[in-house]
Amino acid sequence: MKLYQNRQAPNPRRARMFMSEKGVDFDAIEIVELDLSAGDNISAEHKHRNPMGGVPVLELDDGTYLSESMAISRYYEALHPEPPLMGVGALEQATIEMWNRRMELNFFMPVGMAFRHTSGHFSDREAVCPEWGEITLKGARKMFSFLNNHLANNEYIAGESFSVADITALCTVDFARVIKLRIDDEQPHLRRWYDTVSARPSAGA
Amino acid sequence: MKLYQNRQAPNPRRARMFMSEKGVDFDAIEIVELDLSAGDNISAEHKHRNPMGGVPVLELDDGTYLSESMAISRYYEALHPEPPLMGVGALEQATIEMWNRRMELNFFMPVGMAFRHTSGHFSDREAVCPEWGEITLKGARKMFSFLNNHLANNEYIAGESFSVADITALCTVDFARVIKLRIDDEQPHLRRWYDTVSARPSAGA
Repeated sequence: MKLYQNRQAPNPRRARMFMSEKGVDFDAIEIVELDLSAGDNISAEHKHRNPMGGVPVLELDDGTYLSESMAISRYYEALHPEPPLMGVGALEQATIEMWNRRMELNFFMPVGMAFRHTSGHFSDREAVCPEWGEITLKGARKMFSFLNNHLANNEYIAGESFSVADITALCTVDFARVIKLRIDDEQPHLRRWYDTVSARPSAGA
Repeated sequence: MKLYQNRQAPNPRRARMFMSEKGVDFDAIEIVELDLSAGDNISAEHKHRNPMGGVPVLELDDGTYLSESMAISRYYEALHPEPPLMGVGALEQATIEMWNRRMELNFFMPVGMAFRHTSGHFSDREAVCPEWGEITLKGARKMFSFLNNHLANNEYIAGESFSVADITALCTVDFARVIKLRIDDEQPHLRRWYDTVSARPSAGA
């Protein structure tokens, strides 16, 4: 099995953290590091693995390629149901899906777009729009206070238990450093949650 | 049970189509139509249901609110596993998740952003960036030919069976009319798929 990824990018980290929570033995997986700045991920070779050109991509032993961090996560959730990170039963599964998507659509994506459009980091391969970068940066900043309020009354993002929504949110908070957003002193609930989740061994995977 | 939604918006249609495929009896659900142009969805009343201000929102009989079309879909997938629309077994679940996300991230979202940023339809409540609208419009257009090629060798978006990925793609193709994108005569495979999926009774839900 091979994992095509990049050490600094947030999506591969989401997959690694999920896999680590599931007890995956990384020594049994060949890690193939791609240099995204050099365009390794948009090479013909990589587009054969994933036509969308993203990382991570998991190559199974039979040669099947799985891309999208959440598809890889769902693969492991089904293979190793314990501990459940996507919920058990209809209502819990739906609640976690809801919160994970809120974290993706309203937090992870604005942070990612703010990075790409304010820095022009991938201007060799995509149209860059600084004005859009500023708009998404504001949206990302708002989420820090939204989350602080939410976590005043919730232990974890989706409620009482650690879930995939916490993985998405943690990887977003850490990645947001590239656009100079950090938890501030007026966000103690977000800080409490961040320290708790960051202390899990999987956070370093 | 209540479904807060809007008849023209693509996300509620995704949920309705999924629910219809699952045999949900819409006569047993109170449909509450929100006027998005008038801002019904960003009222304090609706933000109590969904702090992100989106539709659809499903209100369960105990007063629980579920938002995000895919969270509502997952709720019904768990309640009524047959027919499976999100896959059975780890590899199939992951493959469908991968293709559904490709449809969302690379197709549904660019179409939605192109609409909002070229039309300024929601300029009363969000920053509008016409340049970003043009960039995302180009991305959305590219997906029509990507899908035509993909469907030359695949019966459905995620392979041999109808799945949630087809629902996402169909709702996107239909919604793309608002940015004047349509399947053209040089996309016969996409046309074949579109006609097949559009003919399902759920497409009219």
